[in-house]
Order: sequence, then C-alpha cells, then structure tokens
Amino acid sequence: MADKKAGGLEGVVALPSAICRVDGANGELSYRGVDVMELAKYSTFEETAYLLWYGYLPTRSQLRELEDRFACCRDLPQGITRIIATAGNEPSEPMEVLRTSISAMARFDPQGPVLRDQKADLDLAMLLAAKLPVIVATFHRIRTGQEIIAPRDDLNSAANFLWMLTGEKPSEKKARILDTALILHADHELNASTFTARVAASTLADIYAAVSAAMGALSGPLHGGANEDVMHMLERIGDPAKTEQYVLDQLAEGNKIPGFGHRVYKNLDPRGEALRPIVAELYSDPAQRPWLEMWQTVERIMSEEKHHLHPNLDFFAALVYRWLGIPTDLFTPVFACSRIVGWTTHILEQYANNRLIRPLAEYVGPVDVPYVPVNERAIQAAA
Amino acid sequence: MADKKAGGLEGVVALPSAICRVDGANGELSYRGVDVMELAKYSTFEETAYLLWYGYLPTRSQLRELEDRFACCRDLPQGITRIIATAGNEPSEPMEVLRTSISAMARFDPQGPVLRDQKADLDLAMLLAAKLPVIVATFHRIRTGQEIIAPRDDLNSAANFLWMLTGEKPSEKKARILDTALILHADHELNASTFTARVAASTLADIYAAVSAAMGALSGPLHGGANEDVMHMLERIGDPAKTEQYVLDQLAEGNKIPGFGHRVYKNLDPRGEALRPIVAELYSDPAQRPWLEMWQTVERIMSEEKHHLHPNLDFFAALVYRWLGIPTDLFTPVFACSRIVGWTTHILEQYANNRLIRPLAEYVGPVDVPYVPVNERAIQAAA
Repeated sequence: MADKKAGGLEGVVALPSAICRVDGANGELSYRGVDVMELAKYSTFEETAYLLWYGYLPTRSQLRELEDRFACCRDLPQGITRIIATAGNEPSEPMEVLRTSISAMARFDPQGPVLRDQKADLDLAMLLAAKLPVIVATFHRIRTGQEIIAPRDDLNSAANFLWMLTGEKPSEKKARILDTALILHADHELNASTFTARVAASTLADIYAAVSAAMGALSGPLHGGANEDVMHMLERIGDPAKTEQYVLDQLAEGNKIPGFGHRVYKNLDPRGEALRPIVAELYSDPAQRPWLEMWQTVERIMSEEKHHLHPNLDFFAALVYRWLGIPTDLFTPVFACSRIVGWTTHILEQYANNRLIRPLAEYVGPVDVPYVPVNERAIQAAA
Repeated sequence: MADKKAGGLEGVVALPSAICRVDGANGELSYRGVDVMELAKYSTFEETAYLLWYGYLPTRSQLRELEDRFACCRDLPQGITRIIATAGNEPSEPMEVLRTSISAMARFDPQGPVLRDQKADLDLAMLLAAKLPVIVATFHRIRTGQEIIAPRDDLNSAANFLWMLTGEKPSEKKARILDTALILHADHELNASTFTARVAASTLADIYAAVSAAMGALSGPLHGGANEDVMHMLERIGDPAKTEQYVLDQLAEGNKIPGFGHRVYKNLDPRGEALRPIVAELYSDPAQRPWLEMWQTVERIMSEEKHHLHPNLDFFAALVYRWLGIPTDLFTPVFACSRIVGWTTHILEQYANNRLIRPLAEYVGPVDVPYVPVNERAIQAAA
C-alpha cells in the first residue's frame, strides 16, 4: 500500500513483455535476451533495431535490407518541412518540434492514421525511425539560418545525422561513438515514455498517436531531459576547482544532481558503464581535461555523500554528445531518435496482445458535497 | 497475479486523487464530491470546469470570471490556423489535427513549453480549454471549403462551438443539450487518456506535452473513438427491422457492440442514464423514430443476450451529437473539448504531488542469448 500511496507504480508489475530485461540489482540489461554490453561492443544501431523489432539477430542479408530501408526513407514530406520551418522562426523547444512533426506525419500517410496489420505497422515504425533524425537535423539547420543538407544514402543513421547537422561527413570514430550511444538508448522496458506509448496504444490508437505521446513524456526533466540537465550543470560549474563546492552546496540545499541514481538500477547503470571507457578516452585529451576532472569530482563527491549513487546513462551520454559537438538542447531529441525503436517495439507488442490499460485511483477527496445554488454559495479558499 | 498477466492494470490502485469518484458497483460518479447527476441537471460546463479545476463550486462573480476567460481567449494564433489549413488540404483525421495543433501551440506561448507555478499552469489549462473547440470548428470549416466563422464572446463554450461550426446561432435547447453532454464528459478518473496525461506529466513534461499525449490515447477506438463507432454501427444497420439480426450476427461472430459495457461500471453508467431521458425526448419526434427504434432494439437484444451489458455514455452521446448535426468524425473531438478539463485537472494534481510513474514488466522473453557474429547466424522465423 505504501507504493500505491506514493503513486509511482513503483515495483508494480504492469504487464508481461518479451522485449527488454532489466536486472536492477545486478546492473544488467538485455534486449531480446542479448546482453546490451555485447551489443554496445559488437553491434550497430541498425542491427540492434532489427533485434528489437523482430526478436532475433539478422543474417547479413536481413541486416542489409533494414539498412537500405533506413537509408532510402529519409526524405521528409514537404508539408512537414513547412511545419518545422514555422517552428524555426519561433523560439521553439526541439522536443515540441519533434512531437508536432511526428503527430502531423499522419496526414501525409496515404493509408491515414489507422491500425494496420503487424507487418504494415512495423513498416511504419521503420519509416518513422528513419525520418526522426532528419527532422532533428532539418529543424537545427533552419533555426540557425543554414541551408538544409540532403540526406546521404551511403551513411548509416548515426553518420547521416551528424552529416545533416553539420554538413561534414563525420570521421568513423565519431560515427561509431554516436552509434554506440544509440544502441544503449534503444530500449529500457517500461520507462515513463514507453509506458506512456503503451497506455496510448492500449486504446488501439495508431502509431503516430502513441509515438507522439511518448515524445511528450520523454521531454520531461525527470526522463529524457536529464541528459541536458547534466550538461547545464557542468557548464554552470565551468571549473574543476569549483566542482566539489558546487555539488556540496546543491546537496545541502536538498537539490538533486542530474545524471545520478535510477529508479531501477540500485547500483550501477550498465549503459553508463558501457560509455565510461569511451568518455574516459575522449576526455583524456589535454584540451578536454577540465571536463574529465569535473566529471570525476562530481562522481567522487556523490559517492562519498550519497551512498550507492552512481552516474547513470544520462551523465555519460551528455559528455559523449558534447564531444560530438551536438548542441545541448538536441541531447533529448537524439535520445528520441534511438528510443523510437523501443517505443514502436512496445507499441507493436501491445497491439499483438492488447488489454486496455486503465488502473484505478484511490479517492481521497470530499464526498457527498451538495450542489448548492449559486446565490447561496460562500466564498471558498483554494484547497 | 491474474490481473498482472492480463496487462491492463485492472483493479490496481495507481495513485491517490481528490478529483473524481467512480463507484462502479452502484453506478455513481461525482466530481470533487458533487454528484454528476446534479451537475447534469443544474450546472453548466463552465461551472463544472471551475469545480474540477478549483475543487469547489464558484460564487457568481468567480463563475463570471471563468466564463469571461473562456469567451475572451478563443482566437487562435495565425500559425496554428496555418497548420490546420495544411491539414484541411489533406484527408486528415480530426483527432490528429487537434493533437498536432495543441502540440504546436507551445511555440506560440511567450513563456515557452515549461512548467510554471500552479496558478500560471492553471491559466494555461483554461486557455487551451477555451481554444480547443475553436480548433475543431476551424478545421471543419476549412476542410469543407467554408469561411472560418469568428468566435462570439456573448456565447458560452457549447453555443459558440455550434455557432463556429455552422454559422448559425444555436437555439437555447441545442446549446443546453451540448452543454449537458460536455458536463458529463469532463472527467472520469484514470481512464486511459487521463492516465496517459498523468504518466507524461510525471516526468514533469509541460502541459502541451501531457495534453497532446492524452489526445493520442483518446483517439483510439477502445476509448474516445467508441462514440463514433456507435454512429457507424447505427448507420450501417440503417433500418429498425434489420437491427435485431445485425446485433445477433455480430455477437455470433464474437464482435463487440460499440457503446455497451464499461471497465468500471459493471451495471449502469450514470452518465449514459443522465442522457437517456434527453435522447428519448429528442428522438420521440416522428422523423427520428427509426433511430429511437434502432437504439431500443440494440439495447433490448444486448440485455437479453449479454447479461448486465447496458448502453454507456458513448452510446447516448452519439445520438445526442447526431441530433445536433455534428459530423460523426467530430464526435471524439467534442469529447476532447470537454475532457481537456479533466486532463488538465489531473495534470495539475500530478505536478502538485509528483512521483515518476514507472511500473515494471514481467519479462517473459528468452534469456542468455549469445551475440553470434553475423556470418554464423542461422535464418530465423519471426517469433
């Protein structure tokens, strides 16, 4: 009952799922049974997407087919570019632009926003996953007054994103590092955005509806927004020598330090640990040393002051995206470009074995309040 | 555990709430402790909105202030009208247009899409509730090639909607009937769209994000879409004499009859019962008799064949909207124009006492699947 009162469905099993296994106690994560640490080392984002969507690792020809699909479906309908351009002229929040664009994509779908069979719904999921990074890059080019870069069909999703963002073909190292980050963000069981997607999908709402709902949830600072907050914090500190005092002050004021702790991982977050050696190498460069020191100081103080609180995926991902030159307010959109694979995998699983998700509330308000005619009402203060 | 396996959180208490009390066993519903049957008889939609948002019934001057606010905030930003117009040229699904419009409204908000204090968030909720019917009517005028009608500040929300939809000032009777339907749709505890809104809001995502997420969930045929399905069914039957056979055939094929049964109300749905006498009166007109007979035959057969299955709110609401001349594909949008009050009340309650909503899944997939190099993989069939 304590959990119910708290209201977070903490520890409550909401539904069965064959997609993602999170072992919070041991800090382990697998997609379709395959250890995510292995995937981070040996797989690609496209291969991982195949594994999540189909349930097994592809053969070479199956993988090539999916890679081709990602590469050939990147063009946006002109109407979507126009909607993005409207946003480019206003001071728009990138996650709003993504959400609005995905929502509006339905009107350019010749089939309309309806449920189809599993195969056609999977085709649509792939289409949206291919286009999402293009939406992010197009928005960024427009808002910065730069020419929109056309997608390249000889690049994978990660490399093409960096290409469209900057107009420069990224080095293999850069592309691979972003690819690894995408692998690690692709799914995470019933996190709040995926759960939002499944609740929406459980009404048999279409994929556009369920994905744009998830996008809304991801935009919150307690979820996807956390990676941006890590960077804001490090920028605010700005100096290794000031780091310790900053963290101690924040803790003394009862503030949370972004990028630390996790509802499910009580010890280490395996996804963060997969990025740790990469971040350590990238930031060993002398020019980057201050950032390395800030990270290590924050981690040390948190370990000393807050028993068992370790940096999570958001913390290391923020440092990766910064190194790649991605603007801070696109960190959460990049997260979305990967998590859309997990969202759609869960949405398809929900459709395949659906039950409307409709819990109950415990009513704690007044009862038997009479409807008093307006002339007889006393002035009341807000509850 | 049976509930958990089913996956619908059925019977699970997700959180405490002081907004809406649903007594499924006795078929009772109250908003903030006030019986919804009383509200349907004596209140107005604006007054009911006040009750939900503030927690108590307003004095006359408090009510007038809210009515003024609804009346004066109806104009849409030009950018939103442009986005709607793009949709008007494509064969767009109305719920998509509402969702996209609410999502994009964030970019015309000078404060941007951020959480503010409770008062400012409530101001924003009122603004969105005032504008939503205008979005629906504007879309309908554009898609039918008709001139957009300017809102009138001497009409309440219900009357102004009918005015903007048709260009004719509705009779008092028509306006009152729509008003009553809006009162009955304003909130319903943790229905799937409201729960979607709360899960999204629990990440501290902003109101635009949470409301557009709810809109996605409402569009599903197992939720808001049900009222449209009732009308499609009755139109398909088209003849009182064919009604009995149609229903029997559907039941024999294992199909559900839309507008019957409810997850929470095991007996009567009080909201449907509040509309029943109104629908009976409207359809007693000789020209409407075939519809009355179809309704009564469907109800009789369902009662005989399906123990305890009664028509719910969606069933009667569909007949009300049809009588008002509202196009069938705008039934769910009209539902949204009312439920946005409930959504935002729940979102504000979530913000006020937040806990990230993040349940667990029971993992039922394969474990310890090795990462086999691509050359060594066998072809697998889909799971």
